[in-house]
Amino acid sequence: MAYVDIVTALALLQFVYFAMRVAGARGKYGIKAPAVTGNEMFERHFRVQQNTLEQLVLFIPGLHLFSSYFNPLWGAALGVVYLIGRQVYEASYVRNPASRGAGFGLTILPVSVLILGGLGGAVMRLFGH
Amino acid sequence: MAYVDIVTALALLQFVYFAMRVAGARGKYGIKAPAVTGNEMFERHFRVQQNTLEQLVLFIPGLHLFSSYFNPLWGAALGVVYLIGRQVYEASYVRNPASRGAGFGLTILPVSVLILGGLGGAVMRLFGH
Amino acid sequence: MAYVDIVTALALLQFVYFAMRVAGARGKYGIKAPAVTGNEMFERHFRVQQNTLEQLVLFIPGLHLFSSYFNPLWGAALGVVYLIGRQVYEASYVRNPASRGAGFGLTILPVSVLILGGLGGAVMRLFGH
Repeated sequence: MAYVDIVTALALLQFVYFAMRVAGARGKYGIKAPAVTGNEMFERHFRVQQNTLEQLVLFIPGLHLFSSYFNPLWGAALGVVYLIGRQVYEASYVRNPASRGAGFGLTILPVSVLILGGLGGAVMRLFGH
Repeated sequence: MAYVDIVTALALLQFVYFAMRVAGARGKYGIKAPAVTGNEMFERHFRVQQNTLEQLVLFIPGLHLFSSYFNPLWGAALGVVYLIGRQVYEASYVRNPASRGAGFGLTILPVSVLILGGLGGAVMRLFGH
Repeated sequence: MAYVDIVTALALLQFVYFAMRVAGARGKYGIKAPAVTGNEMFERHFRVQQNTLEQLVLFIPGLHLFSSYFNPLWGAALGVVYLIGRQVYEASYVRNPASRGAGFGLTILPVSVLILGGLGGAVMRLFGH
């Protein structure tokens, strides 16, 4: 399961990185706390971080469920797709929010497979398979 | 523990569903990213999702702690109350935010029992019970 | 691992407490749902809660990884630093958002050690150490 834990830690560090980008944008665009609006570029960085928070909350339990009922290596591989998807999402969202679809798809697809795979595995376990 | 994992996966899918409602409201009410304000109905859907994010972050570790120290079946049953509570919350919040109290109570009550039960179980374990 | 679970439960309860502060500020400053802006003091409480949500999502898996690869007692000790850091963060942010740095540092430092320690432990396990 070390593969799974490495991917988990990398996803956490990726979120820290996005948060640092938000902190940087706060300074660069002069948005003083507690404000989170007032500059379009700041808001793009902020929304990337917030959306990643939402995905991370799905990803980590999903990865854990999938890896415990199916294959940890496949779980970790889907996790790598998630990590790449988030980087694509960030790059495209900051450039142009309307272009964020592909990066979002590359996140929600592996996340959905992880959750649905975990659900399927748990249901099968319940019925004795 | 398969019951617990099924409830966990359902809570994750419920959050995905609320996020899809937000995406739908974005299109319907013409709120372009990165904006998250500007239309009351969009904001209701958005706040349902955000509040569910907060509850989910409490629910999943709480469910895990409670189920490992007490009874997984009781944990899963409290999880079902949580799932129903969130649906009531969404329906009432979107209709009228001022009426969100009952649905919120049906979430925070099971969540509190899960966390406090988990805490109590861990403290008892520490003292050798 | 009971120490780790107690710290986890306390971090969840701390987040519930911050959420209750937000609910109180909603009433006190007359911010009606779904709004989350309109009063500086409300926004301070709201941002404390939101920032804690972000940190909690890092803290819990980080604590779990660190404690499983290294020492649960050290993990729990870093968790106590996190808990204190969050209280300092809240008190200073509500008083003056510009003074939030120390409390934030007392959170992100233990969180970073937990994640990086967990990552290091998982990588070492992978290479057979």
